[in-house]
Amino acid sequence: MADEFERIARLSKVLARASDDVLVGIGDDAAVLRASTDATVITVDASVEGTHFRRDFGSFRMIARRAIIAAASDLAAMGAAPRAAVVAMNVPSDIDEEDFDQLIAGSRDAVDELAGHLIGGNLAQGRELSITTTWLGSLSGPPLLRAGARVGDEIYVTGHVGAAALGLHALMQKSTSGAASPFIERWRTPHARVAEGQRLRGIATSCIDISDGLVQDLKHVCDASGVGAEIDARLLPLLRQHTALAAHLGVDPWSAALAGGEDYELLFTAPPGVVIADLGTRIGRVTPGSNVRVAGTPSSFKLEEHGYVHFRA
Amino acid sequence: MADEFERIARLSKVLARASDDVLVGIGDDAAVLRASTDATVITVDASVEGTHFRRDFGSFRMIARRAIIAAASDLAAMGAAPRAAVVAMNVPSDIDEEDFDQLIAGSRDAVDELAGHLIGGNLAQGRELSITTTWLGSLSGPPLLRAGARVGDEIYVTGHVGAAALGLHALMQKSTSGAASPFIERWRTPHARVAEGQRLRGIATSCIDISDGLVQDLKHVCDASGVGAEIDARLLPLLRQHTALAAHLGVDPWSAALAGGEDYELLFTAPPGVVIADLGTRIGRVTPGSNVRVAGTPSSFKLEEHGYVHFRA
Repeated sequence: MADEFERIARLSKVLARASDDVLVGIGDDAAVLRASTDATVITVDASVEGTHFRRDFGSFRMIARRAIIAAASDLAAMGAAPRAAVVAMNVPSDIDEEDFDQLIAGSRDAVDELAGHLIGGNLAQGRELSITTTWLGSLSGPPLLRAGARVGDEIYVTGHVGAAALGLHALMQKSTSGAASPFIERWRTPHARVAEGQRLRGIATSCIDISDGLVQDLKHVCDASGVGAEIDARLLPLLRQHTALAAHLGVDPWSAALAGGEDYELLFTAPPGVVIADLGTRIGRVTPGSNVRVAGTPSSFKLEEHGYVHFRA
Repeated sequence: MADEFERIARLSKVLARASDDVLVGIGDDAAVLRASTDATVITVDASVEGTHFRRDFGSFRMIARRAIIAAASDLAAMGAAPRAAVVAMNVPSDIDEEDFDQLIAGSRDAVDELAGHLIGGNLAQGRELSITTTWLGSLSGPPLLRAGARVGDEIYVTGHVGAAALGLHALMQKSTSGAASPFIERWRTPHARVAEGQRLRGIATSCIDISDGLVQDLKHVCDASGVGAEIDARLLPLLRQHTALAAHLGVDPWSAALAGGEDYELLFTAPPGVVIADLGTRIGRVTPGSNVRVAGTPSSFKLEEHGYVHFRA
């Protein structure tokens, strides 16, 4: 195995980018970013082997890209623009140089896609592969927060929900047929909704990214805002063939949509009448109280069995 | 085991601090720091069970404090002031709530000691305990870099060297007698040389913190500066009883001093005649070439056996 310094030299060759914003990049004790008139948004997220992924779920390139994109999703949820990332990897001894180069390539994919810079990191020996990404973002006005939803606001979600969860089930069952492909793709290749988050500033009254599952994350918004919510499961934007694939995999389609995590879509609230049709799908509304209620699921579905309070209309 | 959200609620209760600098702290998708006229310094470091520590080496409180202090050492080496940290922990399922509270307490110890804020983090399940800290620091002028050492400069080091390495040997050998105590304390309770780093700005021509070992880290300075170095081992600031404890442990005292890591002292260069006696001990000088040479060790000592090029005067 190459030593840490040799690996750092290789990755800094692949990742270094000239930028006026980066006064000191990879290679010193720390990186330095130029002073800015914007506020700095900071978030950290880890992707851990055996917890968040298995090696047979995709390439090392995919695993690294996914970890860094998923971390940036929290910037999107604040309405911030990605600026720079530092990535710390715990790397087991069986990761060879080719594998490591793939981890570097995936890191580059992610920061390039987000027009950010990878300005530092850390390599440590570990028994399990773990990729911890800290993103710094810029924000020139107030952030989108979880708090701010008001009774009567409408609830929206970007893209589709539950697709990544079904894709993960397919991977776990090694059911990678044609029908499962677009779902597996959603799990493997998430996109941080950075452009959407920035457009939502000044429009949305609250925002969160869906990492834990739609209802769970909506509950975080409700708790922070001091409100309740009611959503209609029939309005959920599902990927085509969602129900058929769920049946094939033996998974409850409602559970995948309502409790499946890792979509990295944005869930947000906005006052009624605000035109944001191109940003997301309306799925419900903010109510008094503190509970999240779900209407429109079949009587056989019990959300509480999936970890949440449930109300059937 | 308490779930992630319950643990986050507990830690944010212990760690939240009111501050004008922190616009959004723990509890939203990301934290927000106020815009500043200072440059932002960023560094990340991981402390991994089985690689950097074992649980029998100290309390969980110590382990968390040490991880976060060690990460801040890189800010010190840049001359930056600690501002805020985010901490990501991979936590095995056998860490109980009392253990976890100790990890929180140690985190608080570290950020309080450095007058910084812990503004965010991540909790993930992992098979090994891993603590990854990203520090953000402020810098109102040019940073201290590894590059900048000039031929003729003198080489200095703060504090003592090799003590943490001997302390680690003592812990590994379970040799925790009275004589070993101050050395074990150096390993367990490092201090980031933040005040010294800030004072060195405008005085030192280059600077690095000693995490990998004195000669190794000096070589990084030489490579970045395009110079060589010669140090005199007889000038090294050793803790009292260094040689006696090394003999007791069966460890080469020169290896511990020259190649032992984790002292988190600062190694720096300064032009001759600059008065910095209270900041460190002079141990050698910058030379032409690119090699690090060590004079003053006994003929039995071979630095190359400890991973480095050696010259005996």
